[in-house]
Amino acid sequence: MGLSLSVKNTILSHLNSIIHYPDPECRGLRAAISSFYSLETSFILPGNGAAELLYLLMEVLRPKRVLIPAPSFSEYARAAVSVHADVVYWPLQMEAGFQPDLGALAAEACHFDCLFLANPNNPTGNLLPRREVMQLLESLQHTDTYVVIDESFIDFRSDGGEYSVADLVRSYPRLIVLHSLTKIFALPGLRLGFAVAAPELVTAAETHTDVWHVNVLAQAAGVAALQDTEYLTRTQAFVQAEGKYLYGELQKLPHLRVWPPSVNFILVQSLRQDLPAHVLRQNLQNEGILLRDCGNYPGLTPYFFRLAVRTQCENERLIHNLRACLTAKSTEKPL
Amino acid sequence: MGLSLSVKNTILSHLNSIIHYPDPECRGLRAAISSFYSLETSFILPGNGAAELLYLLMEVLRPKRVLIPAPSFSEYARAAVSVHADVVYWPLQMEAGFQPDLGALAAEACHFDCLFLANPNNPTGNLLPRREVMQLLESLQHTDTYVVIDESFIDFRSDGGEYSVADLVRSYPRLIVLHSLTKIFALPGLRLGFAVAAPELVTAAETHTDVWHVNVLAQAAGVAALQDTEYLTRTQAFVQAEGKYLYGELQKLPHLRVWPPSVNFILVQSLRQDLPAHVLRQNLQNEGILLRDCGNYPGLTPYFFRLAVRTQCENERLIHNLRACLTAKSTEKPL
Repeated sequence: MGLSLSVKNTILSHLNSIIHYPDPECRGLRAAISSFYSLETSFILPGNGAAELLYLLMEVLRPKRVLIPAPSFSEYARAAVSVHADVVYWPLQMEAGFQPDLGALAAEACHFDCLFLANPNNPTGNLLPRREVMQLLESLQHTDTYVVIDESFIDFRSDGGEYSVADLVRSYPRLIVLHSLTKIFALPGLRLGFAVAAPELVTAAETHTDVWHVNVLAQAAGVAALQDTEYLTRTQAFVQAEGKYLYGELQKLPHLRVWPPSVNFILVQSLRQDLPAHVLRQNLQNEGILLRDCGNYPGLTPYFFRLAVRTQCENERLIHNLRACLTAKSTEKPL
Repeated sequence: MGLSLSVKNTILSHLNSIIHYPDPECRGLRAAISSFYSLETSFILPGNGAAELLYLLMEVLRPKRVLIPAPSFSEYARAAVSVHADVVYWPLQMEAGFQPDLGALAAEACHFDCLFLANPNNPTGNLLPRREVMQLLESLQHTDTYVVIDESFIDFRSDGGEYSVADLVRSYPRLIVLHSLTKIFALPGLRLGFAVAAPELVTAAETHTDVWHVNVLAQAAGVAALQDTEYLTRTQAFVQAEGKYLYGELQKLPHLRVWPPSVNFILVQSLRQDLPAHVLRQNLQNEGILLRDCGNYPGLTPYFFRLAVRTQCENERLIHNLRACLTAKSTEKPL
């Protein structure tokens, strides 16, 4: 969708403000997040992207043992390892559509200092029903286990609010919710995200970096983005429609297993032994298309890859080129 | 001086690039820094401002005891405390013009895990001759003491290269040089800085944050800024001339002790007992002038403040208003 026009104009009008330091308290941004997500400002920790906050939170919690479902976003493990935590992967079962059994997960997680969960999960797209997450939090309430729930993609859904548990930080002092603002508003190069957590955790995390870490343009862009509800609604409708289309077309292709998208990406498995993800990637790269080879995700095989939901024209081109790869005779394949 | 025109144009031309993630390796920026400062890229660690790097480096070194001259920039102590280090201040003597005896300092520093030094120092402005810093590094060479030298203001001097010890990281594996790019190029709101250190330290520091921490616009602006040597030369000449003027005028005012500027700020002490820095600050604030009350710096008294070297017109207005405060009868003072 590109940049929201109002975000672009806001950045332009704030360009001359970069000769001043950022507001250390991110007051405007915090107020905008507070208003949009109905959260008190003291629970909000803005960051230089959600990824930065993963590292700051690990510095605060300094967990010894961390439980991470596999497959999931690789930064959880990288951040845990940065504080020398032992990472244990909880394998998500392909046969169960990668959907975690949160009851069983809670029973295991209580032996860990920290559990990561993503809602929806990346790259599988699985959504966790709020009721089930609440049960997990409830069953871990009297343990020392911190639960980090990454909702970075949830705003791509118009019903995202029904899945979010950000409001529950008021009741669960060891719940931390992560939220990116760069994905839904197409600002990954500017870096902007926030965590929602007990005020004590927010304050503690802030001591692990300098007070100017969220740049002036990101702060201003965040305020403008959260006010641009039209862009948000349009993005949600677009991603839903195009995701449905792309999923349908992918299902028609031979030699693929396709997982239904919940947001703006689709997990796919190649069923042709001579076409692992890295070969498909190289073939498509020659056509100017970049697929995400998921072969290096713990819990997946070299045959998995992730596709982004893009414009109809781009999705059609992707389908066309994928079909060409998948229907090509084995002897004709490159490499 | 405001933003360099070429930097501003570069930011504008990269605005649409913020829909993409930043280059995790900061290749263009690293190459520009490498070329400008004649340093190999493997020794260069770009950061979301120099301040971010302080925290990342503390995470790598995790010093137990840290020695910091006082007065100096407060972030050194804050970063050290973030990893629970004990901070010991090394008092700089006002009688010696706050110039450290680096021989004595080295003898003390060998009992510490980490020593901070700033060249020039903030807020005193003292410069450390390269030869003396080399002797300090030499005498600490067979100890376990890391030496962090902050050269964030050094580019304000046309002879800054004669003071910098960044090239010595090749010979001293426990030397780390910090460098801000936001001060000299007037970009503090965009965040940009770098550290120079042994490749092993660079790699280790990178594990303590996400790979996208230097935003797209900062990377592009940094490349453009380092190519705009005309802006740099003009800034250096401007700061030198205006600093000399402001220093001269301040010396003519009654009830002040003024330290000679080395870069773009001047340390001043009020000698009027009824006019500590916070009172002067409040009086000038009413005139739209903000002075930096240095009363909270360890090693200074409530009578110290720091002034920025600004345009001639602004400097004149500052002098005019300061004179009014300092020559007002004691009974006429506000508060």
